[in-house]
Amino acid sequence: MENKQVLLVRRPEGMVKDDDFSIVTVPVVPITEGQVLVQNEWISLDPAMRGWMNAGTTYIRGVALGEVMRAFGAGYVVESRHPDFAKGDAVQGLTGVQQYAVVEGHVLTKADARAFPLSWYLGILGMPGLTAYFGLLDKGHPQAGDTILVSGAAGMIGSLAGQIGKLKGCTVIGIAGGREKCRYVTEELGFDACIDYKEADVAAAIKAIAPKGIHIYFDNVGGEILDAAMLNLATGARVVICGAISQYNDAAFNGLKNYMKIVSARGTISGIIVFDYFPRAQEAISDLGRWLQEGRIRYREHITEGLENFPAVLRMLFTGENYGKLILKL
Amino acid sequence: MENKQVLLVRRPEGMVKDDDFSIVTVPVVPITEGQVLVQNEWISLDPAMRGWMNAGTTYIRGVALGEVMRAFGAGYVVESRHPDFAKGDAVQGLTGVQQYAVVEGHVLTKADARAFPLSWYLGILGMPGLTAYFGLLDKGHPQAGDTILVSGAAGMIGSLAGQIGKLKGCTVIGIAGGREKCRYVTEELGFDACIDYKEADVAAAIKAIAPKGIHIYFDNVGGEILDAAMLNLATGARVVICGAISQYNDAAFNGLKNYMKIVSARGTISGIIVFDYFPRAQEAISDLGRWLQEGRIRYREHITEGLENFPAVLRMLFTGENYGKLILKL
Repeated sequence: MENKQVLLVRRPEGMVKDDDFSIVTVPVVPITEGQVLVQNEWISLDPAMRGWMNAGTTYIRGVALGEVMRAFGAGYVVESRHPDFAKGDAVQGLTGVQQYAVVEGHVLTKADARAFPLSWYLGILGMPGLTAYFGLLDKGHPQAGDTILVSGAAGMIGSLAGQIGKLKGCTVIGIAGGREKCRYVTEELGFDACIDYKEADVAAAIKAIAPKGIHIYFDNVGGEILDAAMLNLATGARVVICGAISQYNDAAFNGLKNYMKIVSARGTISGIIVFDYFPRAQEAISDLGRWLQEGRIRYREHITEGLENFPAVLRMLFTGENYGKLILKL
Repeated sequence: MENKQVLLVRRPEGMVKDDDFSIVTVPVVPITEGQVLVQNEWISLDPAMRGWMNAGTTYIRGVALGEVMRAFGAGYVVESRHPDFAKGDAVQGLTGVQQYAVVEGHVLTKADARAFPLSWYLGILGMPGLTAYFGLLDKGHPQAGDTILVSGAAGMIGSLAGQIGKLKGCTVIGIAGGREKCRYVTEELGFDACIDYKEADVAAAIKAIAPKGIHIYFDNVGGEILDAAMLNLATGARVVICGAISQYNDAAFNGLKNYMKIVSARGTISGIIVFDYFPRAQEAISDLGRWLQEGRIRYREHITEGLENFPAVLRMLFTGENYGKLILKL
């Protein structure tokens, strides 16, 4: 049985390039005790992948050169030598960018593919969903009446964080690129307002919409937008750093110029590492599943196809081409 | 009765200059109901004064042009129309840089000039002492066994924060400029180590001394040293921003390049605004006074003289010339 894999073969400088990866076909290796063979149906594309392509270790070690590119995938068990999994089970986990993955059973999670589409376990019911859920609730501590600002508001995590904020009784302002994305954020997702960063002076726009300041800033983008948000903090503001997608492909990472504003605001800056919340995943999945079934939150996927298109699809994340959760169908 | 005053007449660009101030002599105005006339004996010089010279409002409004320069002062009541104060009382408060201050009684605090020298109420028993005390204890939350890094370690606030850290059972590493300051920090103040930022690669030096990382970084300087500290955070690190003295005179305020490290460290960045703690001042003064009397902390003043020297003395703060608390004797 043959296995098509996407290997990381070069560390990108700046934007990810096709040649940073190599696509190879190798035989599927036999599984050993405790392992599971998974056939991937879906591969997740997430901004965090850009960090995983760098050398060294941050919260997780970088992918080694020559190794299968790390990714969350979802699919079905083909063969199992782990007691928790049987042939035919729907699962998701860090399977890598490949057709077949041989993984230790303990890194997989079962998915209920009857309740929701399997691909949703890579998005709203998976790592990005948990990031939005715990990032907003456990780091942002929203209180009814708070004003929440969310960047990357049309993206997977931002769109969900903002909708959860609305469910918690907050005023939610999004930031997104372009009129159509802003329309989606306000009209379809129900945010109270959306700032088009391609058109507006972001700092002035925040001030105009939220003259009393922002209680929570949920940051997916970093860079100038983060600095603009820092100029508009309410007393006791919580700045939750979820990502810095504007910066990941930029060798000269922009510093946070206005960091002293956290002092005068008597606020805190912290971040969300979703891996820390995996033991509490069921809390999030239970709430999110219920909200989805009740129609209280909306979820949108951007589906692409073909393993060989992985590098180009990954780039879409950083150019802002995608709407909602970007996934690759195999 | 004549009153010599130092007025702010120009907003400084870059380093503070003599011409940013004007020294005038005016008659002392009569006090009205609720006011107190104080003869200043001591004027405090504090890094925060540089921020007060800028236009606009941060945590406190900027000093207006033509207004007496804001400063903490300590002296004796000459005349009182406030029930809490009588002639001869030793007091401290925001009296401004002038010989005589007419102030509302409620902004003054009585000082016990028999227990400690009056000038100490501008330092270890005043605003800077409270800053170190509450900044470290209430924002840093030191636990016995933690490793604390303190920049500006030979300065008023840094030297005290580090000594309090030692009293709480922590390992304390200082950062200071020059061999003699580092000797003072380790040999006289009892820090476990001190990094001379003028000689060392600060990030590498922190890593060598604290290979497991820093639990608390108490930052008085900002700039490159803050970024170096961010590279060495332990899991759950608390970064407490107390000041950014390296940046105050720099029009191009350096951003915090490595802010994303707070995410991977699962840490928090917050700041200390001492005004928020004035209602709890007695807690700090009681502990600090006892530690001083028991000889468990050391305090050093750098005394200068003459109101007319105020601009030059203020500059000493930013060039690192002073040891310990810088004060001006009238």
